[in-house]
Amino acid sequence: MADRLTISLDGMGGDHAPDIVVAGAAIARERLPNAYFLLFGDEARLRPLVEAQPLLKGCVEIRHTDKAISNDDKPSAALRNGKQSSMRLAIDAVKSGEASCTVSAGNTGALMAMAMFGLRTLPGIDRPAICSVLPTMNGESCMLDLGANVECSAENLVQFAVMGEVFARTVLGLAKPTIGLMNIGVEELKGNEEVKAAANTIRNSNLPIEFKGFVEGDDISKGTVDVIVTDGFTGNVALKTVEGTSKLISTFIRETFQSSLMAKIGYLFASRSIDKLRLRLDPRRYNGAVFLGLNGIVVKSHGGTDGIGFANAIGVAADMAVHGFIDAMKADFEGLQVDSEAAREAAAQ
Amino acid sequence: MADRLTISLDGMGGDHAPDIVVAGAAIARERLPNAYFLLFGDEARLRPLVEAQPLLKGCVEIRHTDKAISNDDKPSAALRNGKQSSMRLAIDAVKSGEASCTVSAGNTGALMAMAMFGLRTLPGIDRPAICSVLPTMNGESCMLDLGANVECSAENLVQFAVMGEVFARTVLGLAKPTIGLMNIGVEELKGNEEVKAAANTIRNSNLPIEFKGFVEGDDISKGTVDVIVTDGFTGNVALKTVEGTSKLISTFIRETFQSSLMAKIGYLFASRSIDKLRLRLDPRRYNGAVFLGLNGIVVKSHGGTDGIGFANAIGVAADMAVHGFIDAMKADFEGLQVDSEAAREAAAQ
Repeated sequence: MADRLTISLDGMGGDHAPDIVVAGAAIARERLPNAYFLLFGDEARLRPLVEAQPLLKGCVEIRHTDKAISNDDKPSAALRNGKQSSMRLAIDAVKSGEASCTVSAGNTGALMAMAMFGLRTLPGIDRPAICSVLPTMNGESCMLDLGANVECSAENLVQFAVMGEVFARTVLGLAKPTIGLMNIGVEELKGNEEVKAAANTIRNSNLPIEFKGFVEGDDISKGTVDVIVTDGFTGNVALKTVEGTSKLISTFIRETFQSSLMAKIGYLFASRSIDKLRLRLDPRRYNGAVFLGLNGIVVKSHGGTDGIGFANAIGVAADMAVHGFIDAMKADFEGLQVDSEAAREAAAQ
Repeated sequence: MADRLTISLDGMGGDHAPDIVVAGAAIARERLPNAYFLLFGDEARLRPLVEAQPLLKGCVEIRHTDKAISNDDKPSAALRNGKQSSMRLAIDAVKSGEASCTVSAGNTGALMAMAMFGLRTLPGIDRPAICSVLPTMNGESCMLDLGANVECSAENLVQFAVMGEVFARTVLGLAKPTIGLMNIGVEELKGNEEVKAAANTIRNSNLPIEFKGFVEGDDISKGTVDVIVTDGFTGNVALKTVEGTSKLISTFIRETFQSSLMAKIGYLFASRSIDKLRLRLDPRRYNGAVFLGLNGIVVKSHGGTDGIGFANAIGVAADMAVHGFIDAMKADFEGLQVDSEAAREAAAQ
């Protein structure tokens, strides 16, 4: 099959693995008829799960290993001792070219460390970043970095802007994605040295990106720009704040419709619309954090997700592979290097 | 009147000033029968507004000035040229002891600069912080800093922890408030140098605070701790992310109940409960960001609020004054200095 899309899966990563991995593969397979899965993990546990899924017949190859990374493993220890782990073998399948992309719901730090070691960053990129898609007033946006880099230099932020732009263009399908830099005010004078320097660099460069300047925390939900660039500390806090606030308000809504008989009757009338709302806010829809900047496609699923959520993470990985994300990144960063050399030459004359 | 509570108001600060300031004072006066307002601003505009409010009869003194700080004024320019502005005169009334506290809905940067210059920080505090109360699953918590300090040292964060503890104890009325330090993981190894050093200092000190270690972005809404300590960049982004996400979901809910006839009927049945929910999520309830660490009580109202929101900001300022916040701060930071000296002596032996 010439157009077969091979996806490697860490069968043992996640709070409810291996069940959700196999369930997710089956759901994803329905949407991706050319998908073929390399499933790494404990064959004795994986085999019966796969055999119970008629949708997976003939499109899963189980690769046995009895090693798995746990959530408590430190990234350095995982790197040292986890060479035969399901997570590492899944990454190695991308490295060797056997798989087009990989998905794991396991330990984020270990996954990032192994992916960096195994796949390396693309030329022109110093640090990879974690990127995710979020719902907004007018559709969806993506934000990066969400926690790979606690401290970021201006150069890192500029690279993240280009990486995010390529992601939004190739995967979200936006012709000319807009980029904003997270700050605590939209005025040019505000912010720390790194964001000010990054904004200046982008403004004074000939980077082919639609830079809209600074954005603030509430611009995430407003959808003011398509790509929000920030350091991993701020981005991680902001992402979890979105999740926490959504959960808080959902709880308040649930309580509201249980608070009186009239409210319960109202719920019955509105239940179909409320179900649609629930679907719209379903965090599983946005499951699948992408590691950008690596020479290979790695997607991290939320550790606590179910089969539906894991299937969405597989969908994100497949989208990136199908839309040639890595080649687009290479092309853009080659251009970027030439540009900055030209700028240096121009400045020297 | 021995128990008169004098509150100075910047009559000209805010997008809808002076109307909302006078309306807010009238609403606040109903709840605070001993309140007396010093109202700074353009008398020709303020006088008719005050006279239209029967509740304010005999408890407002208008102090005329035709200078006002605009939202575009830089803090440095406001400090230099705004000595006769309504904002500055309102702060000066706290400095002179004429007023117990002040409230402004004007330019945050200018207000902070003038408050720092006019009131100075309390002994033992290097930098003031902005603190606000937020709704959680189990009540409310407070978070600081929300934007006064773009970069914070470990010492700043430790001081913020003590400041926040005093606020939660005296103003929120919690006997033993719990404190958490914002980070991107709860493990001790995670985070930037400042948060790690701050956590170590608090753990190894004999500070009389209930320190619960690191918290994450979703802990804001969970209410995991009573006080969340973070730098002003992260705190500002997190606060605005909460606001943006709340607004997004409220919009989704509104759309849900307009999406079909059945949903509209359901809304009619549930409307009383939905109104209660709306009240619960009303951002005006949480209006009033407190400047902590100054030798005087300054509360910043949201610039775009209405009279109800402004009244809540006055309520926060009055609570701090009535509960002796400044004296409690002084007492705690005196103890803190002795403790750190004792620790230094102990270490030197």
